[in-house]
Amino acid sequence: MKACGLIVEYNPFHNGHQYHLDQAKKVTNADCMIAVMSGNFLQRGEPAIIDKYARTKIALQQGVDIVIELPFVYAVQHSDLFARGAIMTLDALKTSTVCFGSEHGEVNDFIEAYHILELHKDQFHKDLKEELTTGKSFPEASKNAYSTIGLTKGKVDLSQPNNILGFGYVKGIFQTNTPITPVTIKRYKNDFHDQDIAHSIASATSIRKELLAYGKLTSKAVSTLPDMTQKALDQYLLSNGIWHEWEKYFPLLQYRVLTMSHEELRTIHGVNEGIEHRLKRTASQVDSFKNWMETLKTKRYTWTRLQRVFVHILTNTKKDLIQSLLHADEAPYVRLLGMTQKGRAYLKEKKKQIEQPIITGFKKDPGPVLQAEERATDAYYSILPSKQKLKLRKQELEPPIILS
Amino acid sequence: MKACGLIVEYNPFHNGHQYHLDQAKKVTNADCMIAVMSGNFLQRGEPAIIDKYARTKIALQQGVDIVIELPFVYAVQHSDLFARGAIMTLDALKTSTVCFGSEHGEVNDFIEAYHILELHKDQFHKDLKEELTTGKSFPEASKNAYSTIGLTKGKVDLSQPNNILGFGYVKGIFQTNTPITPVTIKRYKNDFHDQDIAHSIASATSIRKELLAYGKLTSKAVSTLPDMTQKALDQYLLSNGIWHEWEKYFPLLQYRVLTMSHEELRTIHGVNEGIEHRLKRTASQVDSFKNWMETLKTKRYTWTRLQRVFVHILTNTKKDLIQSLLHADEAPYVRLLGMTQKGRAYLKEKKKQIEQPIITGFKKDPGPVLQAEERATDAYYSILPSKQKLKLRKQELEPPIILS
Repeated sequence: MKACGLIVEYNPFHNGHQYHLDQAKKVTNADCMIAVMSGNFLQRGEPAIIDKYARTKIALQQGVDIVIELPFVYAVQHSDLFARGAIMTLDALKTSTVCFGSEHGEVNDFIEAYHILELHKDQFHKDLKEELTTGKSFPEASKNAYSTIGLTKGKVDLSQPNNILGFGYVKGIFQTNTPITPVTIKRYKNDFHDQDIAHSIASATSIRKELLAYGKLTSKAVSTLPDMTQKALDQYLLSNGIWHEWEKYFPLLQYRVLTMSHEELRTIHGVNEGIEHRLKRTASQVDSFKNWMETLKTKRYTWTRLQRVFVHILTNTKKDLIQSLLHADEAPYVRLLGMTQKGRAYLKEKKKQIEQPIITGFKKDPGPVLQAEERATDAYYSILPSKQKLKLRKQELEPPIILS
Repeated sequence: MKACGLIVEYNPFHNGHQYHLDQAKKVTNADCMIAVMSGNFLQRGEPAIIDKYARTKIALQQGVDIVIELPFVYAVQHSDLFARGAIMTLDALKTSTVCFGSEHGEVNDFIEAYHILELHKDQFHKDLKEELTTGKSFPEASKNAYSTIGLTKGKVDLSQPNNILGFGYVKGIFQTNTPITPVTIKRYKNDFHDQDIAHSIASATSIRKELLAYGKLTSKAVSTLPDMTQKALDQYLLSNGIWHEWEKYFPLLQYRVLTMSHEELRTIHGVNEGIEHRLKRTASQVDSFKNWMETLKTKRYTWTRLQRVFVHILTNTKKDLIQSLLHADEAPYVRLLGMTQKGRAYLKEKKKQIEQPIITGFKKDPGPVLQAEERATDAYYSILPSKQKLKLRKQELEPPIILS
């Protein structure tokens, strides 16, 4: 059996995801679709709107065969580390291809871009560093540095969010020397960053914005979501009283920053360049997450970067942990969230080739990656009512979801 | 002018406090009554039911002339350190006497007990250590060790809570070489630990129990409280929606323990003898503070000791900070919460003799004691709605309350 890997957040699973999933199946002709999915927190530094098990169930119903958790330590990172973690996780399951959506749509151009970058690596890093020194944000600085070595819009436009991620996957494949073939599908219509819903295929950002603004499923939101997602969102709200969003975590976050010393803040991943002083100074003066973000935002400290810092503060994620992962070239384990019968057959067939342990719950002596996962999980559930917290926490210890 | 010092929590100020205050004035014939009052958290490891400013106002209205904050680092400690901190704070303001309530009621016996203890210090510490090794709680172990050196019930009964505190004050006076004269008043009727209200003078414990069980002022509670206290409690509930109690902090506390490593927990004051393992293990299995406490309680880890540990976790109070204070013999500052015109006149008169800085708000470069105060303050307010949090936090920066 051959497997195609998808790197997803499904936050929540929408019509665009369905389109990509169906296309990926068609294009790769794979026997088994494996999604490596971010768990509690997402790449741009946000809590997932509903928990990972609810999102896993939807994915399985909609045509994914295996859902694995992208370890938290990789999930909330800049595109390179995020991509590397995802590729290593897919590689652990012997996935043949990885199929990603991109604005560009031509995989060979990504590969060429990788080789150009390799050739001019030193120049690129020197330029990037210089650009950053002038106070530019990371996305802007890298866009300029790419341009200097000839990676301009004519080829892959590396200022487009999905191209950046796709380029990360290709780099990850080469850098970890992984036998996965990259495949890309041109993204359908909407822009990753679209803020409003204008079509049945809308960006996850616009869908979340709609859902969270109204605190319920509006007809606009419904038009963009498969039935299963609608049901899951409804059910989550009914059982837990909320969808997860930053504002709900604001009191916790504010409490944490106020009770941490500057020294402690500096040990947190992403707290650099003196941001701890601004965090401490502003913490006792703001009355909402939005208010705090607007107070902190600068050209250099983008919204996404700040949100990631807040995730790391909330989850107590230390610099030294992330530092120790930068050069890892294989996943420490594969955490299986759910599978179909087909997925199960695939795993059975590949069993002997898979070297990493396949786990589900937390273990008694977890390594640092699983330990971080547990912290992130507890931080994620911490805003729920006590009984629900215990209930959802228990899921984390149970066998994977199996769709028959 | 001569001042009499009182060491109080006023949580909340009740008829028994009024009795003690009036008696202390009569017995000492002082011109000025100074109360050193615990701020956010109390000696037995509980959050104050209403904030320190509300409690200060009541105290001033009821006859206290100056209210100073007992620094947080001394407020939530075993009786010796608590007492030492309070005595040092009163000494800073050149208080002539300290007047405490006790079950025993004869101050000379406390002084005699101190000298007996001094004489048999080595024996006492040896016995205490041995008693503790057998797994006894601190109160029980010290009771036995006192008994061995001849401090038995016939003299001061050092198993009675107010005698223990009073003995702490006397020790504090001698150990820091402070020229304060101790005076004691026999406690009126009720027992410190009384759980139920049976009289218009009831224990603060029984009054809080009544208030928190009903979430409002019942007629039983009202019968034990001066009008001012009733009004303040009503007003606090109206403005902030809650009275402070442990259950309200439970989600924060649980979140903290779950996201801290064992190593981090071990740096917290009071986390000893492997309790960090039990804290971590139980944290994801409990659904209320009470439930957690009952799960953790042992003969050795008494209710009070556990509550203090929880205060230190919540406020991020480290072992090394408290360790550095054990041998201090003067207060680093005096934080003035409020005063009457008489109190103001007293301070004016003593101005030149007072060596420590008199402060009100937090400063830009606080020392470790004031820094800990700020953390405790933010932790205390963290459970309030955002707007109220900002409002009450601002009080901490304002000039002292002045009653004209």
